[in-house]
Amino acid sequence: MNYKAVAYILGWILVIEGALMLTPFAVSLIYGEEHGAAFAVIAAVCIVTGILIVFRKPKRMTFYSREGFVVTALAWILMSVFGCLPFVMNGDIPSFTDALFETVSGFTTTGTSILDDVEALSHASLFWRSLTHWIGGMGVLVFLLALIPMTGGGTHMNIMRAESPGPTVSKLLPKVRQTAFALYAIYLALTIAEFIMLVIGRMPVFEAITTAVGTAGTGGFGVKADSMASYSPYIQWVVTAFMIMFGINFGVYFLLATRKFKSAAIHEEARYYLLIILGAAAIIAIAFLMNGTLPDMAWGDKIRHIVFQCASLITTTGFTTIDYDTWPQLALMVLLTLMFIGACAGSTGGGIKVSRVLIMCRSVKNSLTLFFHPKRVVNLRSEGKTVPPEIVQSVSVYMIAYIIVYVVSIFIVSLDNYDFTTNFTAIAATINNIGPGLSKAGPTESFSMFSPLSKYVMIFDMLAGRLELYPMLILLSPEFWKSLKPGH
Amino acid sequence: MNYKAVAYILGWILVIEGALMLTPFAVSLIYGEEHGAAFAVIAAVCIVTGILIVFRKPKRMTFYSREGFVVTALAWILMSVFGCLPFVMNGDIPSFTDALFETVSGFTTTGTSILDDVEALSHASLFWRSLTHWIGGMGVLVFLLALIPMTGGGTHMNIMRAESPGPTVSKLLPKVRQTAFALYAIYLALTIAEFIMLVIGRMPVFEAITTAVGTAGTGGFGVKADSMASYSPYIQWVVTAFMIMFGINFGVYFLLATRKFKSAAIHEEARYYLLIILGAAAIIAIAFLMNGTLPDMAWGDKIRHIVFQCASLITTTGFTTIDYDTWPQLALMVLLTLMFIGACAGSTGGGIKVSRVLIMCRSVKNSLTLFFHPKRVVNLRSEGKTVPPEIVQSVSVYMIAYIIVYVVSIFIVSLDNYDFTTNFTAIAATINNIGPGLSKAGPTESFSMFSPLSKYVMIFDMLAGRLELYPMLILLSPEFWKSLKPGH
Repeated sequence: MNYKAVAYILGWILVIEGALMLTPFAVSLIYGEEHGAAFAVIAAVCIVTGILIVFRKPKRMTFYSREGFVVTALAWILMSVFGCLPFVMNGDIPSFTDALFETVSGFTTTGTSILDDVEALSHASLFWRSLTHWIGGMGVLVFLLALIPMTGGGTHMNIMRAESPGPTVSKLLPKVRQTAFALYAIYLALTIAEFIMLVIGRMPVFEAITTAVGTAGTGGFGVKADSMASYSPYIQWVVTAFMIMFGINFGVYFLLATRKFKSAAIHEEARYYLLIILGAAAIIAIAFLMNGTLPDMAWGDKIRHIVFQCASLITTTGFTTIDYDTWPQLALMVLLTLMFIGACAGSTGGGIKVSRVLIMCRSVKNSLTLFFHPKRVVNLRSEGKTVPPEIVQSVSVYMIAYIIVYVVSIFIVSLDNYDFTTNFTAIAATINNIGPGLSKAGPTESFSMFSPLSKYVMIFDMLAGRLELYPMLILLSPEFWKSLKPGH
Repeated sequence: MNYKAVAYILGWILVIEGALMLTPFAVSLIYGEEHGAAFAVIAAVCIVTGILIVFRKPKRMTFYSREGFVVTALAWILMSVFGCLPFVMNGDIPSFTDALFETVSGFTTTGTSILDDVEALSHASLFWRSLTHWIGGMGVLVFLLALIPMTGGGTHMNIMRAESPGPTVSKLLPKVRQTAFALYAIYLALTIAEFIMLVIGRMPVFEAITTAVGTAGTGGFGVKADSMASYSPYIQWVVTAFMIMFGINFGVYFLLATRKFKSAAIHEEARYYLLIILGAAAIIAIAFLMNGTLPDMAWGDKIRHIVFQCASLITTTGFTTIDYDTWPQLALMVLLTLMFIGACAGSTGGGIKVSRVLIMCRSVKNSLTLFFHPKRVVNLRSEGKTVPPEIVQSVSVYMIAYIIVYVVSIFIVSLDNYDFTTNFTAIAATINNIGPGLSKAGPTESFSMFSPLSKYVMIFDMLAGRLELYPMLILLSPEFWKSLKPGH
C-alpha cells in the first residue's frame, strides 16, 4: 500500500474542506451570528494541517485499485469528523455522536436528521449542513481530481472508480481530469438553474440556495421543520423536476451538451428510470382510488404530492411535502421499492441504481431462456452493449454484500427494541442515502431516539451506501489490517 | 416439449395420490366418521383417471431439463387441486380457495393454516393434512422415481434435479432410482424412530403419527390449536431433536449408514447448520438477559423454548411452543433470519438453504480478497471441492429471482392494507415454507383474514419456494407458452 500517496491526497481533502468551511463563516457575517466563529476556527485547523501534509509531494504516486478504495473510505471519514466539529463547538449540536451522524448524513446525501427542531439552528450551521450535500453529491475526490493534477499510473481512474456510483465508470472525455471537470460544470450549471427557478417562485434567497444544493446532491436536508410542505405548488413542482434531473446519469447531459441528442434520447438507464417513476406514480394513484380513507384534496394536489414523493424517494433525496406514512400499504410498498431501486448510476442519487436492477432482472430472464434453448449463447446487454460476465458477477456479489450489511445492521439496531417496520426502513433510509423511512423513522420523525450504538451503525451504513460498500468493507477486512503491518 | 411423457408421469402421480388418499379413509373407519367417504370418492377418481392415462406408455420417454421442470410444476399443482377436493366435499373446509391453500401449505411443507379452529376437523381430514407434509417433504416425484422404472435419456436425473432442493443434486448411488430409494428408506426410518420416541413419551398414537410425519416433512401442521405448547418438555425436546435431524442433508445419513463416519463428521453444510442454530439460540438468550419484560419462567424452560423455536424456524417446520411474537426485537430478527437461511440442501427443509448462504458469503469474501491480490486465482470452495463458476452464478441469479418474486408478492398482498411486518413476514413464511410469521401472521394467528387474491399469491409462493422458483417461473415465462403452440 502506498501510504505516502494516500496521506498526500487526504491532506488535499483537508485543505479543500477548510476552504469550503469558510462559506458558512461568511454566511454568519451576513446574518451577524456568533455561531460562525466555530467554522472559521475549524477551517483554519483543516487548512493548516492539510498544508503541512501536502507540503512535500511523494515521489511515487502509483495507485492500485485497493489504494483507490482505501483513500476514498478514509477521506470520507476524515471529512465527516472535521466537518462535524463546528456543530459541536458552536453548540448547535452539542453531542459529538449526533453531530457526526448529521454530518455523515449530509456528506453521504442521506438527509436523515437527529435534530428535533431544525429551525432552531443558526444560519451558518444550516448553510454548512446543506452544503455538505452538494460536496458529497458529486464526490469530493472527483472535485480534487478536477482541481489538482496528479501524475502516476492509474491514480485518477482508481480514485474515480472507488468514489463514483454504479456498476461501471464511463469516462465522458479521454482524460479522467477532463471528465471530472465536465461533471462538476454540469453539476454547477444545473444547481444555478434550480436556484434561479426557485427565486422566480419568490423563495427567499437563503432558502433557495440551501434547497438548490440539497436537491443537487439528492440530499434532503431542509431548513424548515415540515421540509417542503409549506412551499407553493410552483416551488414543489420545480423541486420535483430538478430532483428527477439530478437522478439522471450525468452522461446524458454530457451528450446533450455535445449535441448528441439521439444518443441522449435512447439512453437506456435514463428511459427506464423515468418509466419507473411514471409507473410508480400510477400505481400509487390507483391505490388512492381503491382506498377511501385519504385526506380530502383535489386530484391536482394529490398528483403533485404523489409525483413529488416518488421523485424524492427514487432519487434518494428525501424531501417531503406530506406525511406519506399515512398512505395505503400498497403506496408505501411502492415508495419502499423506489428507495431500494435508487437513481441512475453516474448521478448524484443513491440506492442500488437502475442499471444494476436492469442487469439483475435480465440475468434472471436469461436463465429462464436457457431452460428452453440450452445451447443458445445468451448475452446480457445493457445500453446496447454486451455486459462482460465479470460485471454481471460483480453486480450479483454487490447485492449479496448489500444484503449481508443490511441484515447485520438490523440485528444491532433491533437492540433498541423498536418495531420491525422502523428498524427495516431506518436501515433502508440510511444505506440507500434517502432520509426518511416509515413508522417511527417516518417523514415527520427524527432519528434522535436511536441509541448511540445504532447511530454509529447507521453512520457506517450511510458511508457504505454512498461509497457502494467496498471501500468501507475493505476497512473491516483482515487483509487490510494485515497490509498495515511493516513489510507489506 | 415431449407432452406424452409429461402426461404419462402426471397419470402416475394421480394413481399414487389416489392410493395414499385411501389412508385417511381408513382412519375415518377406525373413528367411525362420515367425513372419510369424501376421501374414498376422490381417491377412486384419481386412480381411475390416472390409470386411463398411464394405460399406454409413450414410446419416447426422452426428457430434457425443461420437461423436468414443467412436469414438476404441473405435478404439484395437479396433486394440490385433487388433494383439496375431499376437504371441500366433506365440509371440513367448504371454500375451494381455502382448501387449496391448506393443501398446498401441506404438500409444500409450509404448515401455514387458514383454519381458525383446527380442533374442529375430523380425524380423517387431520390425518390427510399431516400426511401431505410427509408426501411433499421428500417429493412425490422422487417417490415415483423409486417405484416406477423409467427408461429414456436423462429422464430420472432431470426430474430429480427439478424437484430436489439445493444448488446442486448429488447422487448418493450410481443410479438415480437407487438414490431415490435410499432417500425414502432413510426418511421412513427416521419418521418411525420419532413416532416410537413420541409414543414412549405417552403421546396418543394418532397425535404421534401426525406429529412424526409433520416433523419429517418439516411441515408444521399440528392437530392442536396451540401447536406443541401443551405437550410435555420431553415431547418438545424429542420434536426439537427430530426437527434438527430432518433439516440435515440426507447425504450425511447415507454416509453414516454406509459407515463413512469421518466423511459424515466433516460435512461442511451440516456443521455450519448446527453452528447457526447454536449461535442463534445464544443470541436470543442474550436478548432475553438484556430485556426484563419477559414472562417469568425457569431458565431451563426458556432454553427449551428458544432451542425449539430456532430449530422449528431454521428447518422451516413451523411448530411452536410459545407465542414468540412477544419476544424482544433482537430475538425476532434472529428468528426471521433463520427463516430465510433455511435448512440444508438435500433435506426436507425449505428456505434459501445453508449451502447457498455459504456460497454467497464466500463470494463476497473472495471479492474483497481480490482487491488486495488482484492477480491471485481465488476459487470458491464448498465441501472441500472447488465450486464451478456457473454454480456460483446460478446461486446469485437464484437470489435475485427470489427477491423479485418476494417484492411482487408483497405488492399484491399489501392491497389488503395490513401492516408491513404482517405482509413482509407472511411472504417470508410462505415462500420459505415455514408456517407462522410475525404480527398478524404470527404464531397465534391464522391466515384466514387474507383476501382470496392474497391467498392465491401465497399459494404460488409456497409452490415456488418448495420447488425452488424455476419450475413455477417457467410456467409464467412467454417461452413456455410459445412452446405450447403446434410445431414446437
